[in-house]
Amino acid sequence: MVNPVLIGIDWGSTSLRAWLVAADGTVLAERTAEQGASTLKGHAAFIAALDAVTQGWDKALPQLACGMVGSTHGWLEVPYAHCPAGAAALAAGLRRPDDGPHIVPGVLFDDGVLPPDLMRGEETQVAGALQQNAALRARSCIVLPGTHAKWVQVQDGCIARFATHMTGELYAVLRRHSVLGRLMPDNATPDPQAFLQGVDAAREHGDLGLPHQLFAVRSLGVTGRLPAAALADYLSGLVIGHELRAGLQWRAAAGLAAAPLALAGEPQLCARYGTALERFGHPAALVLDNTAPAGLLALARAAGLLLTEAP
Amino acid sequence: MVNPVLIGIDWGSTSLRAWLVAADGTVLAERTAEQGASTLKGHAAFIAALDAVTQGWDKALPQLACGMVGSTHGWLEVPYAHCPAGAAALAAGLRRPDDGPHIVPGVLFDDGVLPPDLMRGEETQVAGALQQNAALRARSCIVLPGTHAKWVQVQDGCIARFATHMTGELYAVLRRHSVLGRLMPDNATPDPQAFLQGVDAAREHGDLGLPHQLFAVRSLGVTGRLPAAALADYLSGLVIGHELRAGLQWRAAAGLAAAPLALAGEPQLCARYGTALERFGHPAALVLDNTAPAGLLALARAAGLLLTEAP
Repeated sequence: MVNPVLIGIDWGSTSLRAWLVAADGTVLAERTAEQGASTLKGHAAFIAALDAVTQGWDKALPQLACGMVGSTHGWLEVPYAHCPAGAAALAAGLRRPDDGPHIVPGVLFDDGVLPPDLMRGEETQVAGALQQNAALRARSCIVLPGTHAKWVQVQDGCIARFATHMTGELYAVLRRHSVLGRLMPDNATPDPQAFLQGVDAAREHGDLGLPHQLFAVRSLGVTGRLPAAALADYLSGLVIGHELRAGLQWRAAAGLAAAPLALAGEPQLCARYGTALERFGHPAALVLDNTAPAGLLALARAAGLLLTEAP
Repeated sequence: MVNPVLIGIDWGSTSLRAWLVAADGTVLAERTAEQGASTLKGHAAFIAALDAVTQGWDKALPQLACGMVGSTHGWLEVPYAHCPAGAAALAAGLRRPDDGPHIVPGVLFDDGVLPPDLMRGEETQVAGALQQNAALRARSCIVLPGTHAKWVQVQDGCIARFATHMTGELYAVLRRHSVLGRLMPDNATPDPQAFLQGVDAAREHGDLGLPHQLFAVRSLGVTGRLPAAALADYLSGLVIGHELRAGLQWRAAAGLAAAPLALAGEPQLCARYGTALERFGHPAALVLDNTAPAGLLALARAAGLLLTEAP
């Protein structure tokens, strides 16, 4: 039987996931809870949420958390590490509330020219991806799809630079709150062909601009060119296509066009991005599942938290 | 004293405006009401709304309406005129519900390659702009800012092609419903400098993609690079900048880079677009106010509705 060496927690704004992790990275147990960092107020609330989700687990194990739990509105604000940021810098930046877990810092990109960019949580997924895949360490581009998707340039094991695309949120607010959502039925079956049509519109005619191309979701629906049930997937393809169009160009401009391109995150969303990347002629070399547990283990090790490890 | 020759109505989804118009285009009276086409159901409701807004006006005058009143969900569906569409085609496409006003058709652009595009109401503003400004008739580009902004290519007095940019709605839903709005105070004073910063971000770095650049509204706020009160104007500049970037390229691709560029619509919004266009090095040659009354008059005349005119 394998013993756990770490309690790892990915503590986002709206939910959290906790894992019992073995020394080789094996996840021995997983739990989820709805006590996201933005739903809790005050030290005692965080302590109680952590106690609840780790009930019955060995409290003597080191605990390491990443995500919005370390933000201004989280448990304890943990200052951002600056790019380039690798495991050593992240480990050096851990902070810990009294009786609480160590918390991983987020990462700030700021070159003084472009607006700064921010991540909290994804740096740990990147650390996990690099831990598990040697081929990504020297030079690579890792894409983490999501509400706020991250495109990460890796150089020499560090996050050299990154860019957030708020594609997931853009899709959600347009679907729920704009005129585009009005034609969409609630329970449409997935339409992969309409998704590809949206991707292709961005790929072939993206110069027409996203504010213009979005309106096609309405005009295609109103004129009956696309059935109402296809419009949500068309919109999804369009916004993901615009992200890929810009992201691939940004990656190429950094000299990473020949370096491995990896997707990491929720499998269904990664599959969607994978299909779209193929359409752009840049298939993902690797598609990884959630690498946060591996990242938490790697950072706990780098920080010397794994006291039970043999010297 | 000047006699009115027409009751003109711009009857949109959420409101309507009615005018008493003289033979030379002078607006003798204006009224507004909240009975937009999407708020009314059934013939009698439209009749009542029209009666209310035209109370005391001479019912013997011809009446001409444009806008969403002619849509599927309006009073009477009026089939779209197809590009290229000029005053003659629009006049030929008028339809009239019993005891109701004549209604101007919308315009459909469909080249069989790109998704189709639609307008209802703006064709009348374009007709008014062309009526009032001979310099725009042969070849021009007319931009009508708004919730769904229209870029219109005019050739030989006709709407040759057009493109909708849903910039206004994009701004509104992101401000009200996305994470970007959360940092914005309700009562910020205008910040023209932040608006220009947003325009410049789109102009200089638009290749990074709108889904990415939007996130700067958050990162600039969180890092304190922009005060919270400046973020709404930065967002406005960013989305308008992306519209202009794409629209100016589309205009140039049509060979209209040297043809007059005009803005038409609500003065404050036109001023915003005017400032942004200057930033792009393409100042508007003309800035027009609401040209809908002039357009309704021109179309009524083209359709032979102005019975009181001397032969």
